[in-house]
Amino acid sequence: MDTSSPHSATETELALLDRYWRAANYLSVGQIYLMANPLLREPLQPEHIKPRLLGHWGTTPGLNFIYAHLNRIIRQRDLNLLYICGPGHGGPGMVANTWLEGTYSEIYPKVSADAQGMQHLFRQFSFPGGIPSHAAPETPGSIHEGGELGYSLVHAFGAAFDHPDLIVPCVIGDGEAETGPLAASWHGTKFLNAARDGAVLPILHLNGYKIANPTLLGRSSDEDLRQLFAGYGYEPLFVSGDDPQKMHRLMADTLDRAFDRIRDFQQQARQGHTSDSVPAWPMIILRSPKGWTGPKTVDGKKVEGFWRAHQVPVSECRENDEHRQLLQNWLQSYRPDDLFDEQGRLKPELQALAPQGEKRMGATPYANGGRLRKPLKTRDIREFAVKIDKPGDTQEQSTAVLASYLSAIFRDNPDNFRLFGPDETASNRLSKVFDVTNRTWMEEIRDYDEQLAPDGRVMEILSEHQCQGWLEGYLLTGRHGLFNCYEAFIHIIDSMFNQHAKWLKVSRKLPWREPIASLNYLLSSHVWRQDHNGYSHQDPGFIDHVINKKADIVRVYLPPDANTLLWVGDHCLKTWDRINVIIAGKQPEPQWLSMDEAIAHCEKGMGIWPWAGNEKPGKQPDVVMACAGDVPTMETLAAVDLLRQYLPDLSVRVVNVVDLMALQTRDQHPHGLEEQDFDAIFTRDRPVVFAFHGYPALIHRLAYQRNNHPNFHVRGFNEEGTTTTPFDMTVLNELDRYHLAQEAILRVPGLQEKAADVLDKLQEKLAAHHAWVREYGEDIPEVRDWKWPSQEGGGEVGD
Amino acid sequence: MDTSSPHSATETELALLDRYWRAANYLSVGQIYLMANPLLREPLQPEHIKPRLLGHWGTTPGLNFIYAHLNRIIRQRDLNLLYICGPGHGGPGMVANTWLEGTYSEIYPKVSADAQGMQHLFRQFSFPGGIPSHAAPETPGSIHEGGELGYSLVHAFGAAFDHPDLIVPCVIGDGEAETGPLAASWHGTKFLNAARDGAVLPILHLNGYKIANPTLLGRSSDEDLRQLFAGYGYEPLFVSGDDPQKMHRLMADTLDRAFDRIRDFQQQARQGHTSDSVPAWPMIILRSPKGWTGPKTVDGKKVEGFWRAHQVPVSECRENDEHRQLLQNWLQSYRPDDLFDEQGRLKPELQALAPQGEKRMGATPYANGGRLRKPLKTRDIREFAVKIDKPGDTQEQSTAVLASYLSAIFRDNPDNFRLFGPDETASNRLSKVFDVTNRTWMEEIRDYDEQLAPDGRVMEILSEHQCQGWLEGYLLTGRHGLFNCYEAFIHIIDSMFNQHAKWLKVSRKLPWREPIASLNYLLSSHVWRQDHNGYSHQDPGFIDHVINKKADIVRVYLPPDANTLLWVGDHCLKTWDRINVIIAGKQPEPQWLSMDEAIAHCEKGMGIWPWAGNEKPGKQPDVVMACAGDVPTMETLAAVDLLRQYLPDLSVRVVNVVDLMALQTRDQHPHGLEEQDFDAIFTRDRPVVFAFHGYPALIHRLAYQRNNHPNFHVRGFNEEGTTTTPFDMTVLNELDRYHLAQEAILRVPGLQEKAADVLDKLQEKLAAHHAWVREYGEDIPEVRDWKWPSQEGGGEVGD
Repeated sequence: MDTSSPHSATETELALLDRYWRAANYLSVGQIYLMANPLLREPLQPEHIKPRLLGHWGTTPGLNFIYAHLNRIIRQRDLNLLYICGPGHGGPGMVANTWLEGTYSEIYPKVSADAQGMQHLFRQFSFPGGIPSHAAPETPGSIHEGGELGYSLVHAFGAAFDHPDLIVPCVIGDGEAETGPLAASWHGTKFLNAARDGAVLPILHLNGYKIANPTLLGRSSDEDLRQLFAGYGYEPLFVSGDDPQKMHRLMADTLDRAFDRIRDFQQQARQGHTSDSVPAWPMIILRSPKGWTGPKTVDGKKVEGFWRAHQVPVSECRENDEHRQLLQNWLQSYRPDDLFDEQGRLKPELQALAPQGEKRMGATPYANGGRLRKPLKTRDIREFAVKIDKPGDTQEQSTAVLASYLSAIFRDNPDNFRLFGPDETASNRLSKVFDVTNRTWMEEIRDYDEQLAPDGRVMEILSEHQCQGWLEGYLLTGRHGLFNCYEAFIHIIDSMFNQHAKWLKVSRKLPWREPIASLNYLLSSHVWRQDHNGYSHQDPGFIDHVINKKADIVRVYLPPDANTLLWVGDHCLKTWDRINVIIAGKQPEPQWLSMDEAIAHCEKGMGIWPWAGNEKPGKQPDVVMACAGDVPTMETLAAVDLLRQYLPDLSVRVVNVVDLMALQTRDQHPHGLEEQDFDAIFTRDRPVVFAFHGYPALIHRLAYQRNNHPNFHVRGFNEEGTTTTPFDMTVLNELDRYHLAQEAILRVPGLQEKAADVLDKLQEKLAAHHAWVREYGEDIPEVRDWKWPSQEGGGEVGD
Repeated sequence: MDTSSPHSATETELALLDRYWRAANYLSVGQIYLMANPLLREPLQPEHIKPRLLGHWGTTPGLNFIYAHLNRIIRQRDLNLLYICGPGHGGPGMVANTWLEGTYSEIYPKVSADAQGMQHLFRQFSFPGGIPSHAAPETPGSIHEGGELGYSLVHAFGAAFDHPDLIVPCVIGDGEAETGPLAASWHGTKFLNAARDGAVLPILHLNGYKIANPTLLGRSSDEDLRQLFAGYGYEPLFVSGDDPQKMHRLMADTLDRAFDRIRDFQQQARQGHTSDSVPAWPMIILRSPKGWTGPKTVDGKKVEGFWRAHQVPVSECRENDEHRQLLQNWLQSYRPDDLFDEQGRLKPELQALAPQGEKRMGATPYANGGRLRKPLKTRDIREFAVKIDKPGDTQEQSTAVLASYLSAIFRDNPDNFRLFGPDETASNRLSKVFDVTNRTWMEEIRDYDEQLAPDGRVMEILSEHQCQGWLEGYLLTGRHGLFNCYEAFIHIIDSMFNQHAKWLKVSRKLPWREPIASLNYLLSSHVWRQDHNGYSHQDPGFIDHVINKKADIVRVYLPPDANTLLWVGDHCLKTWDRINVIIAGKQPEPQWLSMDEAIAHCEKGMGIWPWAGNEKPGKQPDVVMACAGDVPTMETLAAVDLLRQYLPDLSVRVVNVVDLMALQTRDQHPHGLEEQDFDAIFTRDRPVVFAFHGYPALIHRLAYQRNNHPNFHVRGFNEEGTTTTPFDMTVLNELDRYHLAQEAILRVPGLQEKAADVLDKLQEKLAAHHAWVREYGEDIPEVRDWKWPSQEGGGEVGD
């Protein structure tokens, strides 16, 4: 095999490349400082300087250096590269480069490729009404904000999966490299299949300092770093220095070597050479000074190569003549007249260094994933429906039913759908998908291993951060996916959820960004059925976190059974630019709705279950028993079952809520029910006993503008948990059938006195439960074997 | 220096140790399976078996193996060891070992050290009314739940800091090792000072499998692992195999070597030998089969050494005679008669293997940190107070004022207080602490470096996970600390907060667990002043997350200025068993209250600011302008300033809330104001315009039971942000003075028509703001230079 490079960079090329780099640096400094006089055609005056100096210089020259060198690689090899910029706060560099290559002006014509455009370019940066200081959705070529550090490399791998023609250079700052999520991301190669996936080239950029501290890896010896990354499975390649000329040569040669390696690994794999070991993919360790080419010292203090270069190295350029002179000298050191012509256009010989068309990293469709998105092929959910003869007659594991639907998705979408989970896919009862695909596994597979394969499409690593980050990268580059997770531990990625929601909020408003598939969560092993794992596994609070985000972004679904879960899952997978949270049960549980009923129910988001209540036609019920979530629904029906036995004259309505957003008013959320529809369901004045899956306050928060809200009495998780039986979990939190029935009696005016004996009976039942579980360690048969309806004909009343 | 071990283990010792291990394994299996017949004195019958089989066998024999060997080390060297059990789901092992050594029965006398106690021991495990399935607060010797994986090693380092006489062996499962937080934790040695701190001995336990997957590190080659951990800076020592006899010898010798190394490093450092490089601390890589010594196969399927051993390897022991026989054989394989005497007591020669008294790992006070906790020495906050002549006259950086107070804490508490932060301590304006101490830094220090030292007490790493985990470990072992963080990124540790809150909730109810110092957060660089970093840095939602936890655990404070921050900071640092969240400003901002006023205000939690309003004595105001948070307070006062100018007849009351919990009713939270006090402040019927730091829904949630709640009109963060000016941030979210003043006018009945001209004027001011910022990129002078009160004498009215 030919392992040599197409050709090494010539000195002439490198000299041109250095000029290109200077141009990017010039434009970066200009963005941070200038609001006028962009080409320094006159001496800098105070009014040329922005009143507030914002931006991060320190990382920027390194980002520009890498970008310029990658341009050479693209032209030389005709590759598709997606540049992931971990130090996203180096926003000026990303903006500068996309302007230099022409994409910026194509997308934002006002920022034209001339002096006037340059003036706009400078002024708009970190300016009210302009653009953010970080790489952001507004930045062409970016799928990564870089504001919250830690996710660059995991995004890079997510982008590379199932994109065999894509290579993702990923710049990782040495600050970011200290975070946990980044440290775990290095394992990504163990899930990357060189035959079907693209490649990731991590570039660890050690400039030595964070905001005010040295970095751990920056101070590590080369030998420690070599061992560390070899241990992670990489071949580390070093590029170290501060002399631009030497560094250009070193970087060009090292990139040639790295891209040769990638090409070789891909060729081998794609020619069918298989191996039990993961290739030692190259990664680059670039040591260059922080604030490289900037002022060496300011006011006698070290700046270049130190943390003082982090943000704005010369800070008083309006007020202080000396500072302004320093800035002028700094800008002039890039020799703008050598870079830009009279009209402020990049000189033609430098323009020629950028790739063409969609090969430009700012213009690659891989960074605007909606352009690549193919609709997901789905089957009619009726194919997978649970047959329901009578509500509550059948028991199923709801997530297992969904798994059949997901299997078909895998079958029909062999290259753009993946399922992610932290070693919980089987536990969440989705094993049916393994009939069709396997878990991705590139390391050794032993003869007794099960459901592992290099071409598996289920991604499992014991890191919620990795699952979330891979999925984000996968979606942002135009594919579809689902993250299944234990409900309690999804909080691990609260902040990643935040950042993705923020990304969507902004990108939805950019006409040039095409919609991407929604980020879908299937949360199972939820609070009510982690009775065996105990208190640390019991937390339904992710919904509370989600609900703070913009209404047009987030959706939360609590399907009570398998058919509703099928509708919800199918619906979510077909949406775009949203975040959908689905919480569903994995344990055998009663099934309530036929497929037709499920469809009607879910389309409205909530509704009355007439077969469950016993209200008289044309009359308001005495009490509304509402529920959201599978276990609360079961307990509510069991409570209603008791009420109908003990108090047959009590008129009860049962309401189930699948789409939590429907509780809000229409002006709060597009799914909100219209006022009259809401009132028709919940009445305007009857007591509502609401059994909720999560923390009770959330229902109040969602429904507080509703007419009947003062009569809502919500029960949910009260932060009481331990290892116990499933039913005892509900009793601990007073969400069980007995407490719900008691609450109903207490809330119906005048009933308490009349039904004193019933209240006593319910109290006795609670006592019997307590005695039984403490004696036998399992739920009392009356509860364990309960089935709706407990009396013949009960299901018919009110139907 | 003598580098040899005190003595190697003899064969006799190892034979005894093997019996001890068998005893622990026997008791572990017994806990998972048996509710009677604990010593197998009769053949196993269905009724001896628990009806629900819960627990995790897979990791347990390894945990027991390590525990037994560490007992030998303790006796041999007279050491204080704290056992951190990362695989906390191996709860049966931890319980078994603490029972064997006697601590369990001392704490829980009912679970006595005999057959009857063993019966209790077995029955209570994962049983309603019994103990959880995981290591938990109930488990003697534990500071670590292990339910949510990732934090064992960071807890271990937190425990070791400032505990020179403590060594912390930390078992890390290979599942946990895949998580991000764990991957970053290996860097802990770079912050560990061998002279003043204890040591951590990581034991990476590779049993090869997670729930249903192989593990990444389990499948890595020894050479890759060696390089990986050498690269992290460790000396990896391997113990691999499955033959117990060989493994005992190997483990004993390896532990001798590891503890020799630790002793040597500590001796060198404590004799004053300094070095610029971090010692290559030992770590152990233990490869042993999952479910070691358990059934090799069940129903023809591989179990030992495979993921099927993860939980309950033989699952149908009640129903299936073959399974029950398998269980009986398995239990008998440990030869209980060789281990326990007639009364079910551990035989004396095995009892002798456990350490004595507080050297027992279940009894060490380091695992019950409250026993070691010394009160923090604090100074009178008046020493640090900002002098206030007139409200609003002075500008200060509030956090910088607190930093002076913290400096004194460092001075007065040289060995039990630390400050943690992800490279944000200087950015959060706490640099004053560097007058007294430095950042902890064990790697090379260069001559131009600042505020780095091996004995520094400020812990900075760019990982919120590490900061949180170190602090948790530090607090749980009896010390005090504070975590300072950018507000938006504290979401990174949402789930760690959750787990710590759960730990506190349970441990508070255990009489034998002494209270530990509260976990204190100082969140600065908050949503309203991340105008320069943009949308990714703007998120006030952590409070919403916090508020879901039990009322007796959490507190949230929003001090509006420096003197209130001093009171709050001082108060929080003196509390125990709580989690306190303080959100405070770091930018120069108006100072409102004198120290006396601040104390009175904070003690109540909220109150009327009479000098700010203009209500007439004895009459209800027309409107209440309420605020919580520094920027909302400033905007509220500016709004009131406008109202008093434009509508001098309008009677306005200003209310400030410092303690968010005071908004709740007394039955919801112990800090809740009594009804009459609340009504006296907020009135029962006047409109309340509430300017809030966070998401508006939170105020509704807290105050929804208050009489005047229907009249609350809350403004806060509406998820609108970007890089812009500080004032424009408030305008984007309609929390600015103009919108607040407009809201007040609209809410006072009948005022809208009368004040139409004022509404117009306010609208003009908004337009002027928009025009100005887009032209000049900074706030309009009218806002930038605003000072309370804008008119002479304005401050006196209503005073």
